[in-house]
Amino acid sequence: MQNRSSIRTQFLSARDVATIVRRQGIAESLRGMADYVRADYLRWQDFDKNARVASHSELGVIELMPIADGTTYAFKYVNGHPSNSRRGLPTVMAFGALANVATGVPELLSELTLTTAIRTAAMSAVAALALARPDSECMALIGNGAQGEFQTLAFHHLLGIQEIRLFDTDPAATAKLMTNLRHTGLRLIRCASIAEAVRGADIVTTVTADKTNAAIITSDMIEPGMHINGVGGDCPGKTELHPAVLRGASVFVEYEPQTRIEGDLQQMDADFAVTEMWQVLQGRSPGRTAREQVTVFDSVGFALEDYSALRFMRDCARRLGIGRTLSLIPELADPKNLFASIRALPQSDVRDFVAAATLPNATAMVRA
Amino acid sequence: MQNRSSIRTQFLSARDVATIVRRQGIAESLRGMADYVRADYLRWQDFDKNARVASHSELGVIELMPIADGTTYAFKYVNGHPSNSRRGLPTVMAFGALANVATGVPELLSELTLTTAIRTAAMSAVAALALARPDSECMALIGNGAQGEFQTLAFHHLLGIQEIRLFDTDPAATAKLMTNLRHTGLRLIRCASIAEAVRGADIVTTVTADKTNAAIITSDMIEPGMHINGVGGDCPGKTELHPAVLRGASVFVEYEPQTRIEGDLQQMDADFAVTEMWQVLQGRSPGRTAREQVTVFDSVGFALEDYSALRFMRDCARRLGIGRTLSLIPELADPKNLFASIRALPQSDVRDFVAAATLPNATAMVRA
Repeated sequence: MQNRSSIRTQFLSARDVATIVRRQGIAESLRGMADYVRADYLRWQDFDKNARVASHSELGVIELMPIADGTTYAFKYVNGHPSNSRRGLPTVMAFGALANVATGVPELLSELTLTTAIRTAAMSAVAALALARPDSECMALIGNGAQGEFQTLAFHHLLGIQEIRLFDTDPAATAKLMTNLRHTGLRLIRCASIAEAVRGADIVTTVTADKTNAAIITSDMIEPGMHINGVGGDCPGKTELHPAVLRGASVFVEYEPQTRIEGDLQQMDADFAVTEMWQVLQGRSPGRTAREQVTVFDSVGFALEDYSALRFMRDCARRLGIGRTLSLIPELADPKNLFASIRALPQSDVRDFVAAATLPNATAMVRA
Repeated sequence: MQNRSSIRTQFLSARDVATIVRRQGIAESLRGMADYVRADYLRWQDFDKNARVASHSELGVIELMPIADGTTYAFKYVNGHPSNSRRGLPTVMAFGALANVATGVPELLSELTLTTAIRTAAMSAVAALALARPDSECMALIGNGAQGEFQTLAFHHLLGIQEIRLFDTDPAATAKLMTNLRHTGLRLIRCASIAEAVRGADIVTTVTADKTNAAIITSDMIEPGMHINGVGGDCPGKTELHPAVLRGASVFVEYEPQTRIEGDLQQMDADFAVTEMWQVLQGRSPGRTAREQVTVFDSVGFALEDYSALRFMRDCARRLGIGRTLSLIPELADPKNLFASIRALPQSDVRDFVAAATLPNATAMVRA
């Protein structure tokens, strides 16, 4: 019979993940995450893939993103509410789980807000390593909100980008990013317009939040050899690149059926040709083939990357001894006797109950 | 600006829900749950409905069941692994969340294993109150596993059923149920076969676990006026009722598009007529119209019922002061400054970190 304790679910809170990232450093976290994402893209064929399930409302969207291979199931809950920042809330919040395919036991429940920012930046870097010019040194960053620092540091640590040209319609967002990254040695340049930021950049990253069909990047801004990392156009009705930019470029996507609905690609005809990134990463399709080629990574965020991200944080937590367990599933001596769980407390539960009950006062006890 | 504390997610563990049910009693829990389920069916039109998203494997299935009205989003994670009982694990395990549609904030995360057993039984009773003969006194219960006691008590407390005729291929399951319910005053009769259990019963509840196209109820067992509460035929390839039973009855379902795929209905042609329960509960369609009529509730479990169940447990927990909060979402002074969460611990987090760190030793401290 299964050991009762094995049904406990490991839990990583928002604070736990912040602790993990602080302990091992953001550079190592981005590198490790990129390794996990790349490893899973290299076995793309092992996964049962679905487009996400979205529930749209006037103010935003709530989505579930499931994926599974033969042994592990993952899903992410994630919202997108551009108006949240006016309420003092994050625009994007997420959590998710890993479960055992053979038993259905949820083995890990984790925050995914901070984790998603790291995985999105890591995925952008993984794509850019295959698509951007190897001698890229300067990146324009259009949109300096919650994900700005992560994108910047991923391109700094994984691609060697040294100069970031910043623009945001909210000057406070740019100021925040410059303050957060002031000790990194990066050259951070505040620009007065998108065009000014993009001019001369090797890579252009767009990560804006407005849920509109914007065309913040137009074809007149595009220079030969640029790589465009389009991160913010990620749901129906939300785009950042003018269709002419896509027409003039080689376009790469994560999972074509999803990107056709959610990406900047939603503006193009159904037969507009794109290449899925796994084909590039597995060496089945070329990435960049010429110095003058313009490449676009039309990123929307795919469930596979969350699978990788959950795996990565689980492994980091184990190594660092961070996290705790949750009683998410009833622990039953006889699995057919669910009813017994409401009749009496099993002996072994009493201790944890006492501990839980004392939690609010634990500090006082430590001090006493 | 939003108060930081408002982003904490309320958490109800498996133990918390067991405590709720123990405190208010199983009868009151079933009655309260039935009231919440019925109330939500009465405003069926307010909900955005989807069939669930299932991930099938050789050994079982993992599903996500989302639903939303204009203010609240709910989803459930649930598995079905018939082989789990051989591993000492529950066949069905579940958890889920309620979120704010306007902001995407996950406001409640809860166990749903015990809760689902209660909501499924409550839904069966809600349907039977509209479909079974009002003078029903005897129920056959085919399948005496984890959900058996809950079905039994729901029909006892909500419909006045006094006699339960039990059958299970596993005699230990029947013995367990008889032991669990020995002090209820119910007449519990162990039967040697399905046919013996069904003979003379007013209501037949099937809640078996095998993932096969079984025909455990055949038309020769059916007597005029019976109501069949078919609970266990709930995913593709898993049925309990012979097609002739359905053909000879008026068939009622929760959400037709889902039941056509998952219910016993999966055996019938696409034009086989069924009635959705909301139409009956809202008085738009008749339920039972004649004493001799055979009725079938082809139950598969619908996301709306989990929405109701999460609401119910949240409200019970508030009233009883049960549960705690989780740091599932980063609490940010500036929502655009997610990066700040990994740079330093906000002052207010330190205390909880200390408390969490001392949790494993808290009992010792209490004893000291």
